[in-house]
Amino acid sequence: MGSGYPGVIHFVNVKGGTLLGKPVYRSILEVPNPVELAAMLIPADQVAPTLKACGQRGVRAVIVGAGGFRETGPEGAALEEEIIKIAKSYNIRLLGPNCIGLLDTHLPMDATFLPPPGPTIGDVAFVSHSGAICAAVIDWARGQGFGLSRLVSLGNQADVNETDMLVPVASDPHTNVVTLYLESISDGRRFVEQARQVTMEKPLIALKVGRFESGQRAAASHTGALAGEEHAFDAAFTRAGVLRAETSEEMFDWARALAWCPPAKGKNVAVITNAGGPGVTAADTLEAEGLRLAEFNEETRNALKEVLPPAASIGNPVDLLASATPTQFSESLKITLEDPGVDSAMVIFPPPPMFTAGAVAKAIIPIIHSSEKPVVVAVMGERLIQEAVEHLRAVHIPEYRFPERAAAALAVLSRRGDLMQSSQETPRIFTDVQPEVVQRVIEDSKNGEFMPTDKAHDVLEAYGIPVIRMHLAENPKQAAELAEKIGFPVALKVASADISHKSDIGGVMLNLSDADTVQQGCQMILEQARKAQPEARIDGVHVQRMVHSGQEVIAGAIQDPQFGGLVMFGSGGVEVEGLKDVAFSLAPLTPTEAGQMLASTWAGRKLAGFRNHPPADKDSVLEILFRLAQLVADHPRLAEVEINPLRVLEEDEGVMAIDVRVRVE
Amino acid sequence: MGSGYPGVIHFVNVKGGTLLGKPVYRSILEVPNPVELAAMLIPADQVAPTLKACGQRGVRAVIVGAGGFRETGPEGAALEEEIIKIAKSYNIRLLGPNCIGLLDTHLPMDATFLPPPGPTIGDVAFVSHSGAICAAVIDWARGQGFGLSRLVSLGNQADVNETDMLVPVASDPHTNVVTLYLESISDGRRFVEQARQVTMEKPLIALKVGRFESGQRAAASHTGALAGEEHAFDAAFTRAGVLRAETSEEMFDWARALAWCPPAKGKNVAVITNAGGPGVTAADTLEAEGLRLAEFNEETRNALKEVLPPAASIGNPVDLLASATPTQFSESLKITLEDPGVDSAMVIFPPPPMFTAGAVAKAIIPIIHSSEKPVVVAVMGERLIQEAVEHLRAVHIPEYRFPERAAAALAVLSRRGDLMQSSQETPRIFTDVQPEVVQRVIEDSKNGEFMPTDKAHDVLEAYGIPVIRMHLAENPKQAAELAEKIGFPVALKVASADISHKSDIGGVMLNLSDADTVQQGCQMILEQARKAQPEARIDGVHVQRMVHSGQEVIAGAIQDPQFGGLVMFGSGGVEVEGLKDVAFSLAPLTPTEAGQMLASTWAGRKLAGFRNHPPADKDSVLEILFRLAQLVADHPRLAEVEINPLRVLEEDEGVMAIDVRVRVE
Repeated sequence: MGSGYPGVIHFVNVKGGTLLGKPVYRSILEVPNPVELAAMLIPADQVAPTLKACGQRGVRAVIVGAGGFRETGPEGAALEEEIIKIAKSYNIRLLGPNCIGLLDTHLPMDATFLPPPGPTIGDVAFVSHSGAICAAVIDWARGQGFGLSRLVSLGNQADVNETDMLVPVASDPHTNVVTLYLESISDGRRFVEQARQVTMEKPLIALKVGRFESGQRAAASHTGALAGEEHAFDAAFTRAGVLRAETSEEMFDWARALAWCPPAKGKNVAVITNAGGPGVTAADTLEAEGLRLAEFNEETRNALKEVLPPAASIGNPVDLLASATPTQFSESLKITLEDPGVDSAMVIFPPPPMFTAGAVAKAIIPIIHSSEKPVVVAVMGERLIQEAVEHLRAVHIPEYRFPERAAAALAVLSRRGDLMQSSQETPRIFTDVQPEVVQRVIEDSKNGEFMPTDKAHDVLEAYGIPVIRMHLAENPKQAAELAEKIGFPVALKVASADISHKSDIGGVMLNLSDADTVQQGCQMILEQARKAQPEARIDGVHVQRMVHSGQEVIAGAIQDPQFGGLVMFGSGGVEVEGLKDVAFSLAPLTPTEAGQMLASTWAGRKLAGFRNHPPADKDSVLEILFRLAQLVADHPRLAEVEINPLRVLEEDEGVMAIDVRVRVE
Repeated sequence: MGSGYPGVIHFVNVKGGTLLGKPVYRSILEVPNPVELAAMLIPADQVAPTLKACGQRGVRAVIVGAGGFRETGPEGAALEEEIIKIAKSYNIRLLGPNCIGLLDTHLPMDATFLPPPGPTIGDVAFVSHSGAICAAVIDWARGQGFGLSRLVSLGNQADVNETDMLVPVASDPHTNVVTLYLESISDGRRFVEQARQVTMEKPLIALKVGRFESGQRAAASHTGALAGEEHAFDAAFTRAGVLRAETSEEMFDWARALAWCPPAKGKNVAVITNAGGPGVTAADTLEAEGLRLAEFNEETRNALKEVLPPAASIGNPVDLLASATPTQFSESLKITLEDPGVDSAMVIFPPPPMFTAGAVAKAIIPIIHSSEKPVVVAVMGERLIQEAVEHLRAVHIPEYRFPERAAAALAVLSRRGDLMQSSQETPRIFTDVQPEVVQRVIEDSKNGEFMPTDKAHDVLEAYGIPVIRMHLAENPKQAAELAEKIGFPVALKVASADISHKSDIGGVMLNLSDADTVQQGCQMILEQARKAQPEARIDGVHVQRMVHSGQEVIAGAIQDPQFGGLVMFGSGGVEVEGLKDVAFSLAPLTPTEAGQMLASTWAGRKLAGFRNHPPADKDSVLEILFRLAQLVADHPRLAEVEINPLRVLEEDEGVMAIDVRVRVE
């Protein structure tokens, strides 16, 4: 009632009587008008019969606040099962149990069980798996000078879960940004799809907690071992365009900027300040966040010179000096915002010695409001700057106490800008694949085990991934014959499960270019091996087509239990798990995501060439990632596919899967 | 005057007259009493003559606030040189110019040029290269509920610099923590020495800005290229026990915790909360910060069961449920603090629904004050929790709005605790070294160039670092003879500057164990090489003693212009710069630092063995790092020393420098 809800509210309690001057009905069945929503504040054991009554009364939406369900153990879980069944049978959508309800500050309606005051009216929606945090967020937001549009506490999610809430909450015209406090996600692929729908229109920020609880999956391949739950969440958030915050504070710092500013069209920032030190701090954080200080053009520099004293710095940061006037702030900001090389701006001021911070704020507000570029403000201090802070909050300009946080806000505006530009992409799919071949191999494979190497080769080749096959020769003569068949040059490797460091004992020879050398080499390898490890069982020599040397990377794919196919790329070799230079994306894969996987790993960046290594065939690597992603997306029973190493030859020379492991489940 | 300074203050101005009821002298020479400090608020061009008068008057300490010196260009720099000369000739210590002065809230004395109000009296000292930030810090600290003991703005540091201020500021009995806003350091080694002296007694926190300005050094070796200025600062701060903050906010978050709490004796944290969600957030951040949730013992769990309702979680975090009473907070906190497995604690509460946050604060304060373990509090919200916040601030208990920041505060208390335990260590020095041999090689070397390999080998061997030497054989017979001399087994490698991927073309053979095989192998290598690259110039074959396979790492050392010798360790090979898996420390090296270099790199961690690789000889690696550090500490002209790779054999089998580069400057 206190929220000012304009519709009719009825009270129901078995005891009857009156409350706040209105009748209290003894049962929902007695309530006269149509009822759209029932908010239940009753003990757990009363919920089932009351829910049944609601169902009979035709109520289709219910909030159950009470705890005492699944979260308390098996008995509570049984109770929860019961109310789920009742809700389903009456087509009731149920929020909770064990939640604090929901509110809408614009309708307005407050159906939470929190004591007043409710939140300030605003444009940030908050959807939370944690009920306890809601009261704190409402209170903290009030103090930070921003309001909420809607707040939803999800509780046990017996029915309605975080994914169900996304589109309804985001489609509220009063909501500019949706923030999510997530402990888990019920249906990964549906979340991605719904979240994607939201982020095409409005920013969605998630704080995913419980990172360290999830730990690492038990898995036999590197790909599996590295694909912890967090990688899957990151990949899913990337696909869905969700911005992932690291801390609660960061989430709401970002929310204000995204709610009140246009996205940045690029990464070039102008910094205007009356203080050198904080300017340097801002520059540090901007660079760390992937932004850069804009380079001003001639015109901008001349215009700045005209309005500023000679000792001022007209570089970037623009240092107005301690003596700066409010007009110098506003004029410098206007000039730099007009520079086409500037995409966003930050104004920083500690309490100015000669003027009030409030006067500076008042001077810059009209400039900020008349620009289409985002501007954030760092007003440094606390009590001396309150007036400035109030001015800025009143007109929805994001202000922060420190340049570091203002810089982070600009970074998220730039990320949102990037997202808007890449939003229409679809995954890359090839038509020259043979899913039926893979299907046959899967059906013939033993569950849970890695399949024999030749079968694994069949799977990859069916999706157009080139593999290198090994052939066993039992003696030098046979080796020479095999080599003739495969085509020169070839490599020889001693075939023995007992010898691990084959090249160390002279068990490997490369680039043999005719039958004689192969025969002679094979002889030598067998002799060396027998000499080095007389007790080893030696099957003969493996003959392979020689692959030119090149960079070696790992590429793999797994099925994530929540999000389905995930594809991996990174630094391979035996050390892949230690280096953790890997990136994951959802399958199938879009070109932007594939590009990001390369850009975010050293393994990917070095494909462009490094030191005396020539550029490698990056395009072929991208193609393999698309094909791998398509493979696991098409075949959910392929639990793990790993190519380690994938040899990457020089530009236009392709790639070759050297070692391959595939497991079916 | 407004600060309440108890001593005598005299005014001096050429115009004379009276000010605040006191006479204004026309010159410092007219002032009657002895003068200990002169604070000059006069234009730049008046500073020199006034300083001279001060010198004649016997003043030995002067603050020059005026700008218009070095920061404005060559003319200003000349003026600054002049005042330095005057100050020196009269034995005057000078703060500034271009600074806002200094203050001491306990004396009290405010010799800054800032408008009132000055800072609240407190126990955090702030020394700053940026003057502009001082007003903001004073104001912000007031709002955050902590006070300052001293504040020093260093300005242009014509005389007094950040290092000069460290010990005097820290020795103030009212100062519990020193915070530093640093843009650079004038004399690196002296800074380390003075800062170390401070941190043995009191915590010292530094925010070093200008990271991205410094960029990377131009250098020919990997070690040099990687040893950017930031690595040098990190190494110096580690040696000095300085805690390096990433942001201004973090610096003061830490400062409050360090000023008001004892250091933590270990990493096990108890978390007490009435809210599950924030408890999970806290656990995430604690783990990310290198702390862990304590495991409670039987007794603790039983005691918790007695005071809490059955639905409460007596694990860690202890979840008291939303219904928690202030007494349940205080009793749970008391019980967990008494558990010997708990080193520190965090109490988290959003506004509790049934009680006021203030009541919770009041209940826990006596428990916190009677424990010797540090406790920090996250009170979540803003207006509903003001009373709680005021209570906690009044009795110097660090409080934060979010569990993430409270967790970071506990982490710094644990780091301070670690530091106190390792503070007495000295660098490891070997006596079996031959500095005179190195000295001779240095004198014979060309400046700026890498020295010939055999000279580099001499340098390393003189400091007890085992190297592997290569010998050139021009033909198979000579190879066999050389091999006999070196001792079997040997490795052969084609000697040709024109062939880069030697093993790819069959130009390498390993582990040859008798003269016949060597002769035969040499023959084969030469043939293969000629066949593969007919145009290559081939000098013959290099014969080396065979080194067993093993892990390969990089170890190096350089001279940093600010901090002197720096030693490096990390993942080597050709990819060292891309992987950036490296750590740096100051030379000479202490055992703790050496251990840290291994612990903080994958190259170091994997020495313990990984996948099917056996444990490697970690002790020998540590010894090499000590010896390398000693080498560059003894010989400042050794600009770069790099071992890449350093082959690390299995346990007790030692290490071997395979490839070595040394440069003199």
